[in-house]
Amino acid sequence: MNSEKHIVSAFDRDLEAVQALVMKMGGLVEAAMLDAAQALDTRDEELAARVRQDDKAIDALEEQIQQECARLIALRGPTASDLRTVLSVMRIAANLERCGDYAKNLAKRSVVLSQMSPIDGAAGSIRRMARSVVILLKDALDAYIARDARMAADVRLRDHEVDQMYNALFREFLTHMLEDARNITACMHLHFIAKNIERVGDHATAIAEQVIYLVEGRMPEDERPKESGISALSAASIRQE
Amino acid sequence: MNSEKHIVSAFDRDLEAVQALVMKMGGLVEAAMLDAAQALDTRDEELAARVRQDDKAIDALEEQIQQECARLIALRGPTASDLRTVLSVMRIAANLERCGDYAKNLAKRSVVLSQMSPIDGAAGSIRRMARSVVILLKDALDAYIARDARMAADVRLRDHEVDQMYNALFREFLTHMLEDARNITACMHLHFIAKNIERVGDHATAIAEQVIYLVEGRMPEDERPKESGISALSAASIRQE
Repeated sequence: MNSEKHIVSAFDRDLEAVQALVMKMGGLVEAAMLDAAQALDTRDEELAARVRQDDKAIDALEEQIQQECARLIALRGPTASDLRTVLSVMRIAANLERCGDYAKNLAKRSVVLSQMSPIDGAAGSIRRMARSVVILLKDALDAYIARDARMAADVRLRDHEVDQMYNALFREFLTHMLEDARNITACMHLHFIAKNIERVGDHATAIAEQVIYLVEGRMPEDERPKESGISALSAASIRQE
Repeated sequence: MNSEKHIVSAFDRDLEAVQALVMKMGGLVEAAMLDAAQALDTRDEELAARVRQDDKAIDALEEQIQQECARLIALRGPTASDLRTVLSVMRIAANLERCGDYAKNLAKRSVVLSQMSPIDGAAGSIRRMARSVVILLKDALDAYIARDARMAADVRLRDHEVDQMYNALFREFLTHMLEDARNITACMHLHFIAKNIERVGDHATAIAEQVIYLVEGRMPEDERPKESGISALSAASIRQE
């Protein structure tokens, strides 16, 4: 009995250590997104270079988390909800790694964009969208640590706002492209940036869904309304015709 | 001794069953990509609708694989390379699920595009790119089943060709946009389609890297040359100026 208790607490200690790594990783990803958006807005190539460089630390943390989780499974043999938790941590780390990649991609594109004529208001809008999505990501991770299914459900709903920001930006960029062909290249980059930020929102949602799964034992069933810019493009195309 | 042998073969049997599910999932994803590209090329809205509908089966398979893997870990308590294998299966299933999403997205956009004037040669080029990437995905999964690190390394190298196809398409679409603003909306959709097919190639590479990890015990260290259209856009922008 005593030995079993010992095993349980060893698992909890290990889990806490690996969760601390996830939160650290989350902090790095949030900073990378904000810095990349700032680099775009202020045309700061040095900051962009730093974001690209720092993505290596995010990748290394993911690797470490995956290995610690595998070690934890092998060593502690968790079952039922403990096993679910470890598998969730692995998925969340994978989600964060992708978000880090998007921040790195934003930083790369910001350098290319800094060589072109700016598009009115675009960088500011992108930066606002990045801030919103970082808050979403932060809340998803907080919901995970607190095992707060309600907060997680709220993150899922709020991702819809990010989708709407994306659709609005999409139309805005398209208008710039239609108005002046010289804007096309820059707007293509901005489109991809907006799309990638929208995807970070999707990853925040995926993390929130893991929380709901952990707390309630099943994935949320209702599919969220997703249009991914396709409707925005259709609307723009109607306007164009 | 006998009991230990029994446990080992039970693990192998379970692993084989779950690997069969992965191969089935791979087959569905490959068919979805090819069908979606065909729907785009032949403006077949019915086929596109079927691809979108069938994505549910792919998602359900992923869920089943993740659950079987968790069950396998809890029940058999694999360690060392057996545990690595199960974790790889989970990652590969997640990769395939994303590829299924991209096929579904292609099918959605193909319906929108079928309402617009076609862009010369675009759908055919997209279809060729989809075929290449499906072969890549198939080879990555075959390399996994055969635990063939050499074949996996070959997949990694060949993904570069898909990247080059993407960059070429990128320039082509940009040219159409610059030539005639009425092409912009359709070309934006085509751009996103090409980008998503290129991402399927990235997932094939991720699967190949899992194979190398399983066989050699470590991830390949050399970073593959990745430009993701950023260089293509820069080149196009220079041409434009």
